[in-house]
Amino acid sequence: MTASPGSYRRKHKVTVIGSGNWGTTVAKLVAESTSENPDVFEKDVQMWVYEEKVEVDSKTQNLTEVINSKHENVKYLANIPLPHNIVANPSLVDAVKDSNILIFNLPHEFIGNICRQLKGNILPYARGISCIKGVTVTDDKIELICEYIGEHLEIYCGALSGANIASEIANEMWCETTIAYNTPPCDKRSAANANGVNGDSNGGKSGTAYEEHRDSRGQIIKTPLTPVPQDYPPLDHEEMRLLFQRPYFTVSMVSDVVGVSLGGALKNIVALACGFVEGHGWNMTAKTAVMRRGMLEIIQFAREFYPETVQEKTLWEESAGWGDMIVSCTSARNWRYSKMAVERGVSIQEIERTELNGQKLQGISTSREVSSFLRARGVEDKYPLFKAVEGILDQKVNLDDIPHLFRKA
Amino acid sequence: MTASPGSYRRKHKVTVIGSGNWGTTVAKLVAESTSENPDVFEKDVQMWVYEEKVEVDSKTQNLTEVINSKHENVKYLANIPLPHNIVANPSLVDAVKDSNILIFNLPHEFIGNICRQLKGNILPYARGISCIKGVTVTDDKIELICEYIGEHLEIYCGALSGANIASEIANEMWCETTIAYNTPPCDKRSAANANGVNGDSNGGKSGTAYEEHRDSRGQIIKTPLTPVPQDYPPLDHEEMRLLFQRPYFTVSMVSDVVGVSLGGALKNIVALACGFVEGHGWNMTAKTAVMRRGMLEIIQFAREFYPETVQEKTLWEESAGWGDMIVSCTSARNWRYSKMAVERGVSIQEIERTELNGQKLQGISTSREVSSFLRARGVEDKYPLFKAVEGILDQKVNLDDIPHLFRKA
Repeated sequence: MTASPGSYRRKHKVTVIGSGNWGTTVAKLVAESTSENPDVFEKDVQMWVYEEKVEVDSKTQNLTEVINSKHENVKYLANIPLPHNIVANPSLVDAVKDSNILIFNLPHEFIGNICRQLKGNILPYARGISCIKGVTVTDDKIELICEYIGEHLEIYCGALSGANIASEIANEMWCETTIAYNTPPCDKRSAANANGVNGDSNGGKSGTAYEEHRDSRGQIIKTPLTPVPQDYPPLDHEEMRLLFQRPYFTVSMVSDVVGVSLGGALKNIVALACGFVEGHGWNMTAKTAVMRRGMLEIIQFAREFYPETVQEKTLWEESAGWGDMIVSCTSARNWRYSKMAVERGVSIQEIERTELNGQKLQGISTSREVSSFLRARGVEDKYPLFKAVEGILDQKVNLDDIPHLFRKA
Repeated sequence: MTASPGSYRRKHKVTVIGSGNWGTTVAKLVAESTSENPDVFEKDVQMWVYEEKVEVDSKTQNLTEVINSKHENVKYLANIPLPHNIVANPSLVDAVKDSNILIFNLPHEFIGNICRQLKGNILPYARGISCIKGVTVTDDKIELICEYIGEHLEIYCGALSGANIASEIANEMWCETTIAYNTPPCDKRSAANANGVNGDSNGGKSGTAYEEHRDSRGQIIKTPLTPVPQDYPPLDHEEMRLLFQRPYFTVSMVSDVVGVSLGGALKNIVALACGFVEGHGWNMTAKTAVMRRGMLEIIQFAREFYPETVQEKTLWEESAGWGDMIVSCTSARNWRYSKMAVERGVSIQEIERTELNGQKLQGISTSREVSSFLRARGVEDKYPLFKAVEGILDQKVNLDDIPHLFRKA
């Protein structure tokens, strides 16, 4: 007989690390879910907030105190009422204490420093979900952000990505997303050991050989994972969906962190290209051609550098694939500002300086990093659209030449 | 030694059947190509025009005479200069005389009558390309338009479909398309018989067993095809691309008529759904979710009813698949008018009556036909989005219920 959820001695405790507009939005939706599912999750959701002073009611206050008293992130998600079970916490170490589900949601340049602070201060059997889109690319290697987190903290970390715009989700406008979570074999409960009432709380192994979990290259991971103790409810696709899904936020679960991460990162290069093309006066049909070519190059990239593990259908079928591509190329920042650059006849770097208040366009650095990575391997000519985007950024490629990239014989 | 193109005694002669805005646009681009490739194609392109009177320069004239003297289709593609080698012809039988490439481009309700008139009046080794998007669906069966043409005329007919808007292509705004042409085995020239200088002009067989050509269900076609005589240049993907591709119109060649035809037809149902969703106040992220679900249902439909032959990657990868989906759901008629219906709070049938000058929205009939076909097989519940669109047309489904179609567990 399978244990009912209520029969587990402990519940999953959730911490969201990051409190920008996307981090706060994700905290809102998981806090709604934990309230509704008290048998599976601890009700309170910790949210780590980088403490800063804000001016509220003519008083200078700490942002965490304002969030906890007004239940609103006045600085990064104003006018959105937050569930009262979100607990803003200025201490990173305190925020993750006893949490076994860690949701990472902060600008990706901060992730190295955050991991250093977390190391040794989290549960050994914690599991992560990275909402940070992307990969880090140097001439030497590509690394998925979720995998960087997993390796540095010696935990397993999945990834969430999709056709999502934080402000719309915060306003409960319906959309959908993809979560890649390749449940570690040691966390899979067999029918025989599903009754966790008296489960091993000391990190005992399940029946499955947990050493067999593999990374995104198909390599067996070096440090064996500590299994989620059996006095917790299971933690597999069903529970991850339960945690993130809302009536206005539909979740599709997959196991392919490679497809989800590459789609989320490389589509920004394509979004720049779409902005250039549209700014140049072409219409939706031309932009669609660029999106299509971009998707083909992303899939080629995945095949070339993750041949053992990528599941191409993630990119064809999922919100994190074609879905995110469409939204990024019609409604998001990289597209909008590259279009503006062409319309105004200035470089996109100029637009970045004048319009973005010090923020950076992710697509520009991704384009340069990916181009350099491909060049280091001598394969840049196999990716004519990626190459052209870098050429346009450097003002070496003329926009009128774009159609010629697509012609055959 | 392979014969150079110029060494063939005869050249491919092309007729476009139909002269609406899309027909005239296609005639323009193929006429540009035949001019540039005199070794492969006869220069003049016949265009069959349904004769009607037009008022030009204060005189009532025949449309064909105006097209041939002014080189402009003043009625259906005004202000676009046409190549002088387009010959408008009011006689269908005369227009196809001696032509071995027939391009079908007219409203699909006329195709039965046209085929009856053509039967017996075309070259037995003619080959067709249907630019008519779609399929005919009754409760009994689905039939691809290109295959209907092929069967009725006892020739092979491929299909052209993509993320295309006629008026933009007429103005030479760049986009791309997909041509499905499953070259009949009897038309494939082996290296040994590629020298067609003294080729058999009496419809002799090539080395390949031409009887083996199969239809879209994988069945061997009943009436053997007559091969293209060898004193013509080859007629395979390379020549089809040469005929249709322009600097502003990029062609991708595939062999999958099923994927191209189903994509072109069924996306109209999805476009209606996108209009409903957007009219209801949702944004691009929600619309993208509907597109994604729609594409999954199209692929499921293809797998279920063409299991032997469909190549799913046509739908994932090609302009006729995701490309056409995106353009249809953001820029085209079915989407535009369904959105308008919801915004005005009236039925789409009402919009059709008041806004469309007697024209019909293809998506409405496709939705009803496909729903009825699925119901006749008891599988309508496997296609929740298709089912919902019919429900919305009948005002039985509430738009607010759309997200629930997408939720699991």
